[in-house]
Formats: sequence, structure tokens, C-alpha cells
Amino acid sequence: MREVAIIGIGQTRFGELWERSLRDLWAEAALTALDEAKVPRIDAVYVANAASALLGGQQHLGSLLAGHIGLAEVPATHIEAAEASGGAALRQAYIAVAGGMADYVLVGGVEKMTDLESEYQGYIQTTFGDQDFEGFNGITSAALYAMIAQAYLAEYGATREQMAMVAVQAHAHARHNPYAQFTNQIKLETVTRAPALAEPLRMFDAAPNSDGAAAIVLAPADEARKRGLPIVTIAASAQSGDLLALHSRKTLTSFPAAVRAAQAAYKQAGVTCSDISVVELHDAYTIAALLALEDCDFFARGQAGAAVEDGLTAISGRVPMNPSGGLKAQGAPLGAIGIAQVVEITRQLRGTAANQVPNARVGLTHNVGGVGGTAVVHIMKGEQP
Amino acid sequence: MREVAIIGIGQTRFGELWERSLRDLWAEAALTALDEAKVPRIDAVYVANAASALLGGQQHLGSLLAGHIGLAEVPATHIEAAEASGGAALRQAYIAVAGGMADYVLVGGVEKMTDLESEYQGYIQTTFGDQDFEGFNGITSAALYAMIAQAYLAEYGATREQMAMVAVQAHAHARHNPYAQFTNQIKLETVTRAPALAEPLRMFDAAPNSDGAAAIVLAPADEARKRGLPIVTIAASAQSGDLLALHSRKTLTSFPAAVRAAQAAYKQAGVTCSDISVVELHDAYTIAALLALEDCDFFARGQAGAAVEDGLTAISGRVPMNPSGGLKAQGAPLGAIGIAQVVEITRQLRGTAANQVPNARVGLTHNVGGVGGTAVVHIMKGEQP
Repeated sequence: MREVAIIGIGQTRFGELWERSLRDLWAEAALTALDEAKVPRIDAVYVANAASALLGGQQHLGSLLAGHIGLAEVPATHIEAAEASGGAALRQAYIAVAGGMADYVLVGGVEKMTDLESEYQGYIQTTFGDQDFEGFNGITSAALYAMIAQAYLAEYGATREQMAMVAVQAHAHARHNPYAQFTNQIKLETVTRAPALAEPLRMFDAAPNSDGAAAIVLAPADEARKRGLPIVTIAASAQSGDLLALHSRKTLTSFPAAVRAAQAAYKQAGVTCSDISVVELHDAYTIAALLALEDCDFFARGQAGAAVEDGLTAISGRVPMNPSGGLKAQGAPLGAIGIAQVVEITRQLRGTAANQVPNARVGLTHNVGGVGGTAVVHIMKGEQP
Repeated sequence: MREVAIIGIGQTRFGELWERSLRDLWAEAALTALDEAKVPRIDAVYVANAASALLGGQQHLGSLLAGHIGLAEVPATHIEAAEASGGAALRQAYIAVAGGMADYVLVGGVEKMTDLESEYQGYIQTTFGDQDFEGFNGITSAALYAMIAQAYLAEYGATREQMAMVAVQAHAHARHNPYAQFTNQIKLETVTRAPALAEPLRMFDAAPNSDGAAAIVLAPADEARKRGLPIVTIAASAQSGDLLALHSRKTLTSFPAAVRAAQAAYKQAGVTCSDISVVELHDAYTIAALLALEDCDFFARGQAGAAVEDGLTAISGRVPMNPSGGLKAQGAPLGAIGIAQVVEITRQLRGTAANQVPNARVGLTHNVGGVGGTAVVHIMKGEQP
């Protein structure tokens, strides 16, 4: 296996970008990453997108989006794994470079959620679960996560306020992020008194619908080192799955796919959770962040809520979580989520993030599709020339 | 790069399978392939599907379908490239095994086109093209291929009857195929007098809507050889793209993406078109088969029609084309097409096909998405123990 480096990153602002189209967003992120990477050619393009078929009536995004940035002839492939599409696409790009099938690879994620048939947003979430047995019977994504939250609060005696603190911290972290959808600051009561989605989850417990794109250029690390510039290497790329329907699982208070992906990633990278300087975790709902912190082994079962409350996941804490603001505040354009997480970790490891964790050396991303049906974990290491 | 072998194949019957669901079809094909492969484990699953988001409101098929056959924990990834989803997914699976990232990989394609919102079939085809500039303005897939046909007939003086012979031959080839949707025999007049789709294309110039699935198990060839059974190796896996919208191209009478993919495949395999014993080409419309025969270099420009008319593409001809019946007669379940092509070539190279080409040694598959936006070509070689 060849070592793989990240040598270019790009990202659009996330938000309700009414004046921007899917291909515009893609082009901005991809061209920014390519401009920074300055590679002699691109051997392959991977596109992460979760719902353009339903949101915009547009499929075949490999061809469309590679062609839109002047790479029409390059093999271009669309990867979909619900909200984990970004992580899954990066993993395929990593496999291509690590295995020696390609040298220079562009991988980008994009979603255009506003402007196009947005009345279907709730329905779209059901297409990421088991439609025949969950969606068809009327259960929504929020309802599934609400059941998880109820079980978690009951099992561990964690509090609703601890859960709400995840959202408060997210907005605090996004404050100076120029790409963030929400930079306004919120209070605990903003979350606990928001309109209900599915009890105990309320509107501010959920990530928003967002437009946006993010992109990365990969290259063999040996090539990248010759440039004499700071690089970030991918020390581990791991993915696992689980039965798609939540009712088929043995536990409600953990995502076993994420546990497996994290353990595999730690093993591949030769690190433990205590070596990680900074993390971007998949906080689709506040409760999801608590599960993620425990699934990745940062805190013991049932302890993540108290850890957030005690500030252990703040920038200055032991496990700096989502310095970008995460899905909750930076935004959650489905297919772009997993790529944007790695873009933020890359900035952190270069020391150029808006909300910089001091001395960040090793970073982890955790990207989940559906209610834990797919989980992808990447570990990155910073390297000075 | 490691050499990669096909050690298991499976396929459902193609057709209007009203009593079968997406996951049922997948399971039948995948379990048949796994049963034959008898591997100690599966390291990765790739799912090819083109339109389940629109046809069945079901995405996240990696998780759903891996879980449905007892492989919930295995990294499972959904690949979409319109009608070339199957070829593109096989290529990702090939990259994983060739690069050493996985040993045993299951790759399957499935589509459930009947029974579920089938009134959208025409719309779905537009999602494979440039929706904003083609579909939005009312142009259908059949209309795009009709323009290609008009240009081809005008440019080369080929005849409408030559084009129709593609469909007649397809039905003749499918006659004894137990998996085929259409085993009835048709006459030239059946095609030329059928109801019009978009002139000069009529109903029998087009592949049908089909339900079905096909699956393949890959392994390192060195591993496979130890079993002492006939194997088929993948001698080349190549993909290229093109500008998605037909109006952006410089030519109407060839798919440059297919030309590039075929040339790259010949180079990788170290063969020329004259070494190929049998081919499965993407005959979405009769005209597409003529382009394919020329794009893959089997006949000079403008000569494919006469070649079909003269029987050169029959089983006993110089370029035995689509012994399965192809998309036209075996059927065209979108995501399964590219996998089913390779399944048929594998049977041919094993010498076990229903419509066997004598002494088939090297086979080629040609899988196209949209109107040439993506093309994937694989070359396989048979090997006796």
C-alpha cells in the first residue's frame, strides 16, 4: 500500500444558497482544491452525492460534474451512502491511490438541498433508511433518532440539557468559520424550548438542510513530500456497515458500525483515541454526537453528555469536537458532509483553521449514513516539510 | 497490481417480475455467486443501481443489500453511473482487489423497474442526461438516440433495415437463454413497423424496462488458481467519460468515451480487437449497437450495419455479439446491465453458455451510461486449470 496525502482542499460556504446550482457549488469547491494542488493531471474523479436524483432530477453526476470542470474524459464515479456518501467516496479515492491504480485523484461532495422540491426533504431522509419497513410505516429520521435519545437518557441517566449543550457548543465553534451556515450564538434554552421534532428532539437538536460542496485532491505521499509544503497524510481509512433498519439492531444507544470503523481505523493508523488532537464527528442530531464520542472510544458509555457539559469537547478541552461547528452549525449538505469534515481536519493539521486547536497533530473524522447503517472513519496526520 | 479472477457468478431471470422485490432479486443473484465462489469471507461489497431512489424511494443500498444477505458488517458501497453503473461498480471492485485493499469482493447490480411508480420511466431516463439543459426542455433518451441514428444513416448511407437487424439478431440469440426477458423470435418487419418512439427509432429498436439482478465474486487470481477449477481473469478494466449533454459533443456518430475506454482496455490487456472471441455490447437502442461495434474497433466507421446484415455479428460470425440477447432481448435492468454482461462473458469463457460461441478465449464487455457520458470496457480471459 502506498501512503496517501491530501494536497488540495476546497469548500463553498454552506447555507441556503438560493442563487447557486449544484454544478456551480461543485465547481467552486473542486477548482479551489485543484488550484491549490497544482497536479500535472487528474487520473480519477469521485463524486459524493446523496439525493440529487430526488432533489434535482439529476443523476449520472460523475459525468456531469467532471465535464463541468474540464475533466470530461477522466473516469468519474458517483458514490452514494446516504449522509456518509462523502466518507465513502473519499475511501474509494484512497483505495485507488493507495493501491497504485491512480496517482492524482479529485474527490468532492456536493448537495443542493434548497430551491428544488424542498417539500420532499422529510421523505428524502426516509430513503436513507429501510423504506419498506420504516419510511412506509411513517417513521421519520428524527423519530428514529428520538428513540435513540430516549433510550440513551433512560439507560445512562444523562440529561436533556447535556444533549442540548452539543448544539450550543456547535454554534460557539462556528462563530468565526467563514463557511458556516450559522454563526449566531444560542443559549441552552434556545434548544430546549425550540419547536418539537420528535420528543425529546427539537429543532435546534437537528442539523439544517444546506447547500454546499467540499473537495479534496489526493496524491501519493512520496510525491507530495517532494514539494516541500506542509501535507496531511491519511493514516487510516475504514468503513463498516450494519443492518439498515434500526429495529433490526441489538442496541439503540450505540452504532456498532461506527465502533467497528473506529477500531479498524485506530489499528490501521497505529494510534489510540488518546493520540487524537481534534475530531469532526457526525452530529446529525445532538444525540448522535454523544453516541459518536463514545463509539470512537473518547468517553466511556453514558459519559459523553457530562463530558460536553464539562467543556471537555471544547477547543481547549481534552477532545476538541467539531471546531468547524459540525453538521449543526457549519451545515449539512448531505453528500458534502464527509468531505467537509476532512477539509476541516486538514486545515487544523496545517494550523490554518478559523477555530484552530493548538498543536493539532492527529485528527479523526466520523461520518454516518442513515441511522448507523454505514459508518466511515478517517485518521489524518499533519506533516511539516 | 495483482491479477484478478472471477470465481463466482449469479443472475436472476430478467423481465417483468411483479412478485419480486429489489432485495429479493439482489439476494438471488448474490447468493448464487457466493455459493459458487465458496470464499472464506467477503471483504467488501459493491452495489450497482441506477434509479432505486426514484423507482422505489430507496437509497443507501450498500447497507440495505449487504445486510439482507448476512454481510451487514462488511464495507458496502453503492456506485451509480446511470446505465453504466454495473461496469463502474465492477471497476471499483477490481481496483480494490488489484490494488491489494481487499481479497474477496462481491459486486452485484440490481434494478426493480416494474411495480414501482413505473409512470416515471421516461423521466428517469432524463435524469441520466443533463436535466437542466436536456430533460427540462423535453428531450427524451429515445429522442437523443434518434438524432444519433438520423446522423448515422445520413453520414454513412447505412440503412434502416440494417439497424433493425440488430434487434432481430438479439431475439435470435436470446432464444435459449433461460434468463432472458424475450425469447420470442421477431422479423425485420416487426421492428420497422412497430409503433414509433422517435423517428427512425421504433419500439423494437429499444431495450425494455426490466427487473433483475446479476452478481460476481472476485478474488486474487493466484488464490483462485489454487482451487484447480476453471477461472476467468479480468485482463483489463477501463473507464472514460465525456460531456454529459449530447449537444456539447463534436460528433453524433460515435461515443468518444467508449473509444477511449476500449483503446485503454486493449492496451491494458495487451490484445487487439482481432483477439476478441465474443462481446457483450450496450445495445440500449439498435443504433447504439452499431456505434459500439465501431467504437470498439471491430468494424470501420459506417460498416457495422452491413456487418450485422451479413451475419458477421452472429454466433458463427467474426464478432459474435451479445450471445445473451443483449439489453434488447435478455433485458435491461439498469444497474444490473454491466454485471450481467460480464456474467455472460464468464459463462462463454467457461464454455457453459446457453448460446455458446465455440472456443471462446477472450471476451469484451462494453457498458454505456446516458448517451455516452460514461463508458466502461472490461476484457476477460478464460483459463483452464
